[in-house]
Amino acid sequence: MDIKPYLQEKRELIDSYLKNYFNKLIQPTILHEAMTYSLFAGGKRIRPILALASYEACGGDPVDILPQASALELIHTYSLIHDDLPAMDNDDLRRGKPTNHRVFGEAMAILAGDALLTEAFSMITSMQNTNFKLQNSSIVEVIREVSIASGGYGMVGGQAQDILSENSKPDGETLEFIHLHKTAALIKASVKIGPILAGGKRSILEALTIYGGHIGLAFQVVDDVLDVEGTTEELGKTAGSDLKKKKLTYPAIYGTEKARQKAEDLVTMAIDSLKPFSSEADPLREIALYLLRRRA
Amino acid sequence: MDIKPYLQEKRELIDSYLKNYFNKLIQPTILHEAMTYSLFAGGKRIRPILALASYEACGGDPVDILPQASALELIHTYSLIHDDLPAMDNDDLRRGKPTNHRVFGEAMAILAGDALLTEAFSMITSMQNTNFKLQNSSIVEVIREVSIASGGYGMVGGQAQDILSENSKPDGETLEFIHLHKTAALIKASVKIGPILAGGKRSILEALTIYGGHIGLAFQVVDDVLDVEGTTEELGKTAGSDLKKKKLTYPAIYGTEKARQKAEDLVTMAIDSLKPFSSEADPLREIALYLLRRRA
Repeated sequence: MDIKPYLQEKRELIDSYLKNYFNKLIQPTILHEAMTYSLFAGGKRIRPILALASYEACGGDPVDILPQASALELIHTYSLIHDDLPAMDNDDLRRGKPTNHRVFGEAMAILAGDALLTEAFSMITSMQNTNFKLQNSSIVEVIREVSIASGGYGMVGGQAQDILSENSKPDGETLEFIHLHKTAALIKASVKIGPILAGGKRSILEALTIYGGHIGLAFQVVDDVLDVEGTTEELGKTAGSDLKKKKLTYPAIYGTEKARQKAEDLVTMAIDSLKPFSSEADPLREIALYLLRRRA
Repeated sequence: MDIKPYLQEKRELIDSYLKNYFNKLIQPTILHEAMTYSLFAGGKRIRPILALASYEACGGDPVDILPQASALELIHTYSLIHDDLPAMDNDDLRRGKPTNHRVFGEAMAILAGDALLTEAFSMITSMQNTNFKLQNSSIVEVIREVSIASGGYGMVGGQAQDILSENSKPDGETLEFIHLHKTAALIKASVKIGPILAGGKRSILEALTIYGGHIGLAFQVVDDVLDVEGTTEELGKTAGSDLKKKKLTYPAIYGTEKARQKAEDLVTMAIDSLKPFSSEADPLREIALYLLRRRA
């Protein structure tokens, strides 16, 4: 299958859901502007799409879980806004545009991130389809999964370690910790949302958990490589900034070639883990390859 | 009734729950330290205690909702850490100790706040009593209530407006917006958690919502007055800092005496709203008076 039209269609579904959700104005309006500036800055919506695709692989209609899937983009966006802050990575460019704090100032950027993170949990409790109600037990499980993956035991822990490890000597174990927590945890959780909301068999959840773990890690390894090989124009953020900040990355420790190989191996393992599925998981298979081959 | 031993007993229950919860170490340990530094800095635990007391007023055993009540303190603590940041209120002192960023640096303070906020939602999904399971529908409703009260449509919106209104000319309407969103929203939500989790009658929820709204606003008016009348030693934070930063406050617009009167009126109305209850709501009545008379 050609994955591009699939990604495009899902991205439009998510964007349309998010646009409609934020029709309800947040006061003061500058906070609303800061939140939506970064939310609609052209993100690829990878995490929500993974949730929709894994729900589809379990036999569900993606439209039914748009709130839960889209909430993942709020969390991802908040993490980018806070990571870019002067006290953290101090980045000026994101998705080809000035970073949030460069436009709205530090205070409003911190608050926009806080509000996006908080709103995500409100969004997860929203129902999209009045004729099809998700189980409350599944909603609670999704909140648990997402909050653990994105909090201190997950993404925030990874970011903290990332900051602490700048300028430190190469260390594979610490690098693994950072990548698993900072990036892979939320991507894995995104994939798990599908089977959790579909209420399917345990074995299906387990297979998708393995898939999610592998592509989550592959995603970050590819990111590391692109920081070395990509241009600022392609990436929409400053190329080579990991190197400049002496971040712990795969290429820094193992070299670019070994890093590429690692990403390929992970994607192969991810696709292998989808054996229990037939064609209903083709989008997940193609997304894994897409994430490997992307140029930004 | 003497409210002091009641507050003491509940505070100990909450502290013990939180201590036990954070026995599970967050990595890197410096993040864990930053989170627990502020969480165990001697907070009064007003929001969790209100949740426990309102649950008790509905006939429940407070111990059963310790996770949901304690989560409110995580949200309150995160908001203090972020509010104190140099880009926001730039405060050096909180609860008689150096603020989080003064000890752990800005990056770690931002991340500690992010992690506490995220963890709150994980905590709400936790069950304290294995023999008594709260309804999943109630848990979902609590998450919705708390996230709306603390996000862009609530607390974060209030804080954003507060920052924007520094040095602006006195304006009663804007002041009302700030107080209702920045402080009253989460306090009201704390009170509402009790009846939501107890699954009681709509009229009971409505009575407690009115109570929560009134004491939430009273709390902030008293805070404003204490900033003028209290000493740094009593308050544990820099006295007179609202004035110095030219914040919009009740005393600044209406004078200290009228502000005190406003707080008293609100507390009287709060206690009036508890008429549907008999002695089971005595703690809520006494807490309202305690909040009015507090010196810190």
